Amino acid sequence: MIERIAILGTGLLGTSAGLALRAAGFCGSITGWNRSAEQAQTALSMGAIDSVSADPLQAARESQVTLLCVPIYATLDLMEKFSGELGPDHLVTDVGSTKAQITEAAGRLFNTPERAAFLPGHPMAGKERGGAALADAKLFRGAVWLFTDVPTWERSPAATALVRSWRECVVAMGARTIDLDAARHDELVAWVSHLPQLVATALSALLEDEMGDAPELKDVGGRALREMTRLGASPFSMWRDIAHTNTEPIETALFALEERIAHLRENLRAPALRDEFDKANRFRREA
Amino acid sequence: MIERIAILGTGLLGTSAGLALRAAGFCGSITGWNRSAEQAQTALSMGAIDSVSADPLQAARESQVTLLCVPIYATLDLMEKFSGELGPDHLVTDVGSTKAQITEAAGRLFNTPERAAFLPGHPMAGKERGGAALADAKLFRGAVWLFTDVPTWERSPAATALVRSWRECVVAMGARTIDLDAARHDELVAWVSHLPQLVATALSALLEDEMGDAPELKDVGGRALREMTRLGASPFSMWRDIAHTNTEPIETALFALEERIAHLRENLRAPALRDEFDKANRFRREA
Repeated sequence: MIERIAILGTGLLGTSAGLALRAAGFCGSITGWNRSAEQAQTALSMGAIDSVSADPLQAARESQVTLLCVPIYATLDLMEKFSGELGPDHLVTDVGSTKAQITEAAGRLFNTPERAAFLPGHPMAGKERGGAALADAKLFRGAVWLFTDVPTWERSPAATALVRSWRECVVAMGARTIDLDAARHDELVAWVSHLPQLVATALSALLEDEMGDAPELKDVGGRALREMTRLGASPFSMWRDIAHTNTEPIETALFALEERIAHLRENLRAPALRDEFDKANRFRREA
Repeated sequence: MIERIAILGTGLLGTSAGLALRAAGFCGSITGWNRSAEQAQTALSMGAIDSVSADPLQAARESQVTLLCVPIYATLDLMEKFSGELGPDHLVTDVGSTKAQITEAAGRLFNTPERAAFLPGHPMAGKERGGAALADAKLFRGAVWLFTDVPTWERSPAATALVRSWRECVVAMGARTIDLDAARHDELVAWVSHLPQLVATALSALLEDEMGDAPELKDVGGRALREMTRLGASPFSMWRDIAHTNTEPIETALFALEERIAHLRENLRAPALRDEFDKANRFRREA
């Protein structure tokens, strides 16, 4: 029943979503907009979108579902801009990595019977480098797509139907949906996503200082080092917004890891080292 | 010119070495010994060795080259045992992850014109789980194989020729050799190998404590989390010896990372966060 989708932001996630929708058999129109026109052209040439729009508001107005695939603060800006312009027959949804501020704005600016719906979403998928050219129709297969919808929001019947259809689209793209509270979401991703990223950044930056003048030594580390620093390539442009909008949960997780590493350091020759390895082994067995 | 090799310890590395030697065209004999006979039988059935020996000393005596693929303290024990038993027409070499103690023992127990040669070696290859069944003929392809040979050691002509031949075998297995001082080796691997491992252990153990009672949450992290905790599966049995024999360099590296993570934590909303991402990006670009 969804026939017209606008994807605003045709980077890695937006372009992958277009490709995944097509792969899942979606045969309506997909228009795309991107701040830099080049990425939109790439998405067009890959078949992820079938037209390029020059104006995000117009693209949203002419669609039933608007998928925002831009950084968090850009998402919040577009939400402010769209709120008074879109009616109750419209759904806006997003892919932002933190959800507390976006969900708060969604309650304030959308989600009444007279207004457009906003469904806060977050697919747990990505790559360490962005851009349309790396997009992949299979990016969401087997991934979890989180939603932080609020049960008390009252939407128009048309908007409610669009929300249901969009959830079906997400499943058709191969993802598994999980619903949770926005604050709980932000705490959870601080542990399972933001912490691993920032550890990789810290480790990569430290090693750059230690051996940046002897890059041949980087080869010595082999697969383990490559893997533990792969996320070091992640762009600041995306992570700045995450660090700004999820600061306290991230601080808690980073501090806990500092203490844990210190505990290992103080027990390199003590029985507690075995306990830590046993616990780590257990995490992997259940993972 | 090497015709008889003994591989003592037919776990992941030993069995992979046997397979890699065969893949490189080595057609002499390869006898294998393992503390648990089951692993030796697996290596035999995979074609990594062509006979199983019940006695490591006898296996060494009957070979020209003995490759020790056991944990570090077991390597040191076998070195003590073999020193008076093997003559100057014999080479012993190893794959231990730390080299200061092994290289010291090699100078004390081997490497005179009247004694067997000992070439301390360390292939930068492995998997997070050990065992013969996971062995791979391609494990060393593209990997660095470090040696901490000491230029002042005086060996018999026969032993010198065996050292040269073994280095050729290592290259034939697909590895690239790098020679460096044992103390420098141990410092370097503390940064590029032991630090990544222990960070993965700390992160995995921490997350086990945080969400061990809700394992479904582990799925949420996706690829980044899986990758950053893969090494959490590494066995304590191997890492205990590494932590014991390279304690100070590891302490230095762990402490530096604790400080680096604290620096990130204190700058989540400050410009210094960009500098850390830039530096991490640079490490990956050059890696």
